[in-house]
Amino acid sequence: MAPQIPFEARLAGAARSVERVLERFLAEDARPGEIARPPRLVAAMRHAVLSGGKRLRPFLLVESARMLGHEEPGVLQAGAALELLHCYSLVHDDLPAMDDDDLRRGKPTVHRGFDEATAILAGDALQALAFELMADAATHQDGAVRSELVVGLARASGLGGMVGGQMLDLAAEGRYGASALGENDIRRLQAMKTGALLAFSVEAGAILAQANAAARIRLEDFGRALGAAFQIADDLLDREASTAAMGKSTGKDREKGKATLVDVLGLEEARRERDRLVSEACAALDGFGRAADVLRVAARFVAVRKS
Amino acid sequence: MAPQIPFEARLAGAARSVERVLERFLAEDARPGEIARPPRLVAAMRHAVLSGGKRLRPFLLVESARMLGHEEPGVLQAGAALELLHCYSLVHDDLPAMDDDDLRRGKPTVHRGFDEATAILAGDALQALAFELMADAATHQDGAVRSELVVGLARASGLGGMVGGQMLDLAAEGRYGASALGENDIRRLQAMKTGALLAFSVEAGAILAQANAAARIRLEDFGRALGAAFQIADDLLDREASTAAMGKSTGKDREKGKATLVDVLGLEEARRERDRLVSEACAALDGFGRAADVLRVAARFVAVRKS
Repeated sequence: MAPQIPFEARLAGAARSVERVLERFLAEDARPGEIARPPRLVAAMRHAVLSGGKRLRPFLLVESARMLGHEEPGVLQAGAALELLHCYSLVHDDLPAMDDDDLRRGKPTVHRGFDEATAILAGDALQALAFELMADAATHQDGAVRSELVVGLARASGLGGMVGGQMLDLAAEGRYGASALGENDIRRLQAMKTGALLAFSVEAGAILAQANAAARIRLEDFGRALGAAFQIADDLLDREASTAAMGKSTGKDREKGKATLVDVLGLEEARRERDRLVSEACAALDGFGRAADVLRVAARFVAVRKS
Repeated sequence: MAPQIPFEARLAGAARSVERVLERFLAEDARPGEIARPPRLVAAMRHAVLSGGKRLRPFLLVESARMLGHEEPGVLQAGAALELLHCYSLVHDDLPAMDDDDLRRGKPTVHRGFDEATAILAGDALQALAFELMADAATHQDGAVRSELVVGLARASGLGGMVGGQMLDLAAEGRYGASALGENDIRRLQAMKTGALLAFSVEAGAILAQANAAARIRLEDFGRALGAAFQIADDLLDREASTAAMGKSTGKDREKGKATLVDVLGLEEARRERDRLVSEACAALDGFGRAADVLRVAARFVAVRKS
């Protein structure tokens, strides 16, 4: 796509390209080397992945790589891997023992549309498929690059990243004893739960492009600030938006006593903090000049989105 | 270890070496690049992984690689990755919505010792850590080898392998409508649920050793027969052994109406089939001569083990 294409069309175009890759890997027929694909499990995985979504993480990866001059078809496969990882986390997060949600993107969650065991297994298989796509030879010609992507994805999504953040989030509800989170605790929780994978989406673009250390550090700073802005925007939406626009039950985080920066800072100060983070994200891109315009718009989009 | 060391001492020695690697990666302190490690989550992961076990998959990997002349320290890390993957599958398999087991290796299962949400997250984080270890530079100097290991692990453990087999296993209980599995259905289910990861353990040794195609095909045949023999041995144990020796509730599979080859073939014929598979496994190793002696003993050990 040419740089002058409006941002939302660009985002939608990337989503369609990534969905074609997802569709291919989530086909009902077994691929070479597989023994069989149980139809119920494939159906649950397809429900989890192919029911819409902005595909923001793949978009960030594709645009970061493009900015650094890497436009190979493999970026779509790496983007699809990020999306599979993200979707697995939503399936497990929605489970009765976790957030116990009935709706996701306006449709029944996987354990409601299928059943709990199927949802657990669908999430597990989506995680494995995410790593398979990342390591697959079609993602990048250099095996060391592919391995680096796998390590980065595992760290961003595991014990010290996303899953660790989900654990802290449950603890913040008071499940495991009294919990009173300060501003810094909340920032750390969110940097793990949502920030790490968003930041890695940008970093992955730099890994694919085999960018130099200076470019990588700038993109890491961008990714971190973007991830933090994203989370405040999410918390503001949870407070303000209607269930219809979000396609999931809103206000629910508050009910459960989940602490957010909006609670700690108040609405006005939280909005200011979100805007400050967007500026910080954009400033991190200064060294890239006009080539970074799409990522700058993306940072603003992430922060002021309505769903 | 020298080849003349008795098999059980050799198995125990490999287990200790792999456990040192597991211990290091499951340390309580965050590693560089991680934001934090929530203590509850680390504790649950350690409970799942460091509560004993034969470490059979790492052993098969280490011995296959050694037979092919590859004895680098990285094999232990690749073996540890297999064990993490296996342990995550046990944690999720034990969940109330799945097999609903209270005991594993004589200790409370993770959701009994902690809680259900923690068990879901611990399994998820163990899977991510498995892929991280496999892709980590310390596993092998060649990035293409590491990526091939990741792809193989993902396929063996995902939709068309282990997780797919777990799905078929639940369906075989009649959860999703009437189910009457024939001998071939059961063989396929088991080839996916337990066979695929066992066979990959051997294949991973060949990948690490960058073995030629002929050697890889022989090891694949060995791994497939070994995996099938393992599962019959498991079903025979479930029928015969006491709860004490297995460290988990036995006879339970039967109660749930899970179909096994022992049911279909009868005890005597199942034992003969197990022995036939061990012979088939050993025959696949003919081309390797005496170098394959440890793997031959391993095949017999797997088939006649008492726990």
